[in-house]
Amino acid sequence: MNITAAYTDLYQLTMAQVYFRTKPKGRAVFDYYFRHNPFDGGYSIFAGLEDVLHILETLTFSASDIAYLEQHGFEAEFLDYLKNFQFQGTIYSSREGDVVFPNRPILQVEANIIEAQIIETLLLNLLNFQTLIATKASRIRYSAENGVLLDMGLRRAHATGGYYASRAAAIGGFDSTSNVKAADDYNIPSSGTMAHSFIQSYEDELQAFRDFAQWRPINCVLLVDTYSTLKSGLPNAITVAKEMEHRGDRLLGVRLDSGDLAYLSKKTRILLDEAGLSYVKIVASNQLDEFVIKSLKEQGAPIDIFGVGTNLVTGKPDAAIDGVYKLSEFNGEPRIKLSENIIKVSLPYKKQVYRMLDENGMFYGADAVALFKEEQVGEMEHPFDITKSLDLNRFNHEALLEKVMEHGKKVNPTRSVTEIARYSKSRLEKLPEEYKRFDNPHIYKIGLSIKLKQERDALVLKHKF
Amino acid sequence: MNITAAYTDLYQLTMAQVYFRTKPKGRAVFDYYFRHNPFDGGYSIFAGLEDVLHILETLTFSASDIAYLEQHGFEAEFLDYLKNFQFQGTIYSSREGDVVFPNRPILQVEANIIEAQIIETLLLNLLNFQTLIATKASRIRYSAENGVLLDMGLRRAHATGGYYASRAAAIGGFDSTSNVKAADDYNIPSSGTMAHSFIQSYEDELQAFRDFAQWRPINCVLLVDTYSTLKSGLPNAITVAKEMEHRGDRLLGVRLDSGDLAYLSKKTRILLDEAGLSYVKIVASNQLDEFVIKSLKEQGAPIDIFGVGTNLVTGKPDAAIDGVYKLSEFNGEPRIKLSENIIKVSLPYKKQVYRMLDENGMFYGADAVALFKEEQVGEMEHPFDITKSLDLNRFNHEALLEKVMEHGKKVNPTRSVTEIARYSKSRLEKLPEEYKRFDNPHIYKIGLSIKLKQERDALVLKHKF
Repeated sequence: MNITAAYTDLYQLTMAQVYFRTKPKGRAVFDYYFRHNPFDGGYSIFAGLEDVLHILETLTFSASDIAYLEQHGFEAEFLDYLKNFQFQGTIYSSREGDVVFPNRPILQVEANIIEAQIIETLLLNLLNFQTLIATKASRIRYSAENGVLLDMGLRRAHATGGYYASRAAAIGGFDSTSNVKAADDYNIPSSGTMAHSFIQSYEDELQAFRDFAQWRPINCVLLVDTYSTLKSGLPNAITVAKEMEHRGDRLLGVRLDSGDLAYLSKKTRILLDEAGLSYVKIVASNQLDEFVIKSLKEQGAPIDIFGVGTNLVTGKPDAAIDGVYKLSEFNGEPRIKLSENIIKVSLPYKKQVYRMLDENGMFYGADAVALFKEEQVGEMEHPFDITKSLDLNRFNHEALLEKVMEHGKKVNPTRSVTEIARYSKSRLEKLPEEYKRFDNPHIYKIGLSIKLKQERDALVLKHKF
Repeated sequence: MNITAAYTDLYQLTMAQVYFRTKPKGRAVFDYYFRHNPFDGGYSIFAGLEDVLHILETLTFSASDIAYLEQHGFEAEFLDYLKNFQFQGTIYSSREGDVVFPNRPILQVEANIIEAQIIETLLLNLLNFQTLIATKASRIRYSAENGVLLDMGLRRAHATGGYYASRAAAIGGFDSTSNVKAADDYNIPSSGTMAHSFIQSYEDELQAFRDFAQWRPINCVLLVDTYSTLKSGLPNAITVAKEMEHRGDRLLGVRLDSGDLAYLSKKTRILLDEAGLSYVKIVASNQLDEFVIKSLKEQGAPIDIFGVGTNLVTGKPDAAIDGVYKLSEFNGEPRIKLSENIIKVSLPYKKQVYRMLDENGMFYGADAVALFKEEQVGEMEHPFDITKSLDLNRFNHEALLEKVMEHGKKVNPTRSVTEIARYSKSRLEKLPEEYKRFDNPHIYKIGLSIKLKQERDALVLKHKF
């Protein structure tokens, strides 16, 4: 499946046809944001942007797409429009890899409303998922401290979504991936070990290890739990490691994939060290996530490399981030979406977001959302609680939304995954620890400028019943 | 991203290179199966097979794949082999759409071990995910009874995995999808309603409804909760429905997307009926899953059409099925994978699975796994509990694994999604109710033939320490 402009929800095209008839020149601003950090966490890592921009630059309807829509009742004139469809809008966005928070615009699309509507699904689809996985990866990185992290989830990923999962995992702090396709396309280091089937294909485990070490001595990791980790796998691995030494090679590691990883890794470390193999690393896998790794670390498990699969690439247990795309301005007029729940009311107008920095350049814990054209934001208000506000004059601040696409063309050269991951790491280093802990993390404050809050409240009152 | 043979884990290629050097003619049998039904359910719906077979028929390494592997230390002779790689194995499989259970082979690959290993990741990736989603869809279908089910999850799906999610949802019982691309490629009915942004782009809701109904009268559904469902959306929708009647059109439905759906749907039904609009349907959406729909049904909510998104396409809360691919035979010799946990020990040899039928042709509740060549299976044994067995002589039975690919070519013409969905429905009708309930469903028994159990036990003893 190739992504074309028909990679969208049918209703986008239905609505687009009505816009085409009734307001073909309508100019819209849409906000992309989400309402909750995934995993009950204190922050999220924004990911997926470069993919979106890259696709938007060349997005068209294929002949087959047009034929399908023709068969499904779309009008000839509108189909002619779609045949020449090209996204020509402007996009402001947080930088990919940045630490972001709920209920503030992360990205804004400013475009003809037909174009803005048609790309909605694609944009949500790629940003929601990659942000979910980059955030999960970042949490796993946090718990693994300096441990090496290997993504090995492709077999449990959501079909080809696994390709994007590997990219997002690298952004969130993973060192390498087993996914060859993603490694190649996104220039992520690839790595891997061996499977049980390899050992099973031999009459005996020792011969399997010997053959593997002989024909693939570089980065050789032997899987030691096919029959019995301590009684068979590890003694055989030690034998082969010694044989490798005689040839001038070195075994990289042994992999534990079942049983009690804390107990087995300690035993394994002792046995390896006693055999003079202190350089051989211990790789562990089997349903790992940030909590299991944290526990292993707390137990002092001497694991060097963590292989993480299912829980990483599926973003368990949340499996989704609740990102939305809301109309905030139309032909220069403010727009709002009400809700039974005041917290879900959207913010009108094109906006900018400012991040407050403390005296050391660390994130202070407050992002202020303001109208795009406000020159100075001296105070931010709590979005709903009128008793709360914050004087901003004492802070240095950064504007977080930058223009990344203009008239359908990317403004900046593509940032590589390595570059984005490095940026993300540098941003996380500025986030105080209390936002990173897993249990009841501190809540990063999002406030509104006085002008924005006034505009929003006026609109709420205008529409209330 | 196009799927090529590099859509795999690096270690498959590492192992393949060693096989290429040490046992290039090795003939392997691998079993695909999983260990638990997702969602703590009583059954699973097998899906993804036609996609796998379709891809395998033409799977090759691209020039770019080869170049990548060359840069990453693979040997020239092995790369020459990969340049000509073509899957030429034979596959036996459950029929796509069938009701399947854990711990019995669902699919078996019989091939050169290099080929069988290279395709492992692709096969697990597509089968695990689609089986997860088809099963979720089937559960939602069960709770929705005769309600119409619309998949609208693309925006929250795992990137392009959403394409396969829509296919699997149709197999599990969904009536249509919002996903235009999947609808086109897989010939699934497409449908959709309208978004809040459409209404917000107008100064007033009534005009938005009027324009929409005028320019898109076919299957017109009006979204009524942008400002206030009962005070604004519904009265405006009724006005427009009456105007449509004057033009000879009919409003298909109104959509509720927030608030208490039980309360609002009842109020809405009364107001529509009082206005003489009993033909106008009620569409509901907003974080629906099988449990919410069951509750709505129990409360008597008069909802005709359910739009399901995130919880369907991400397979929440499980987000993955634990499908594995285990070597069971190599060069005619049985193979086994032990485990600390006896329940995770794999089954040796190529096998067949028989489903017992009761006197009415319903599934009796027992599948027996036997050696492929056993002529008669008169008794099945519990896999681990020696006190339990079942006399099979009184049952009619079906062989569940059929040859679907031979020497790399599909045996049967491609079955359409519609055909697979119909087959799945007919199979579910044969599954007694106690396996379908959500809470503590009855456990479908999987047993082994006496011969298979003897072979397995002998191998376990051979490998035990």
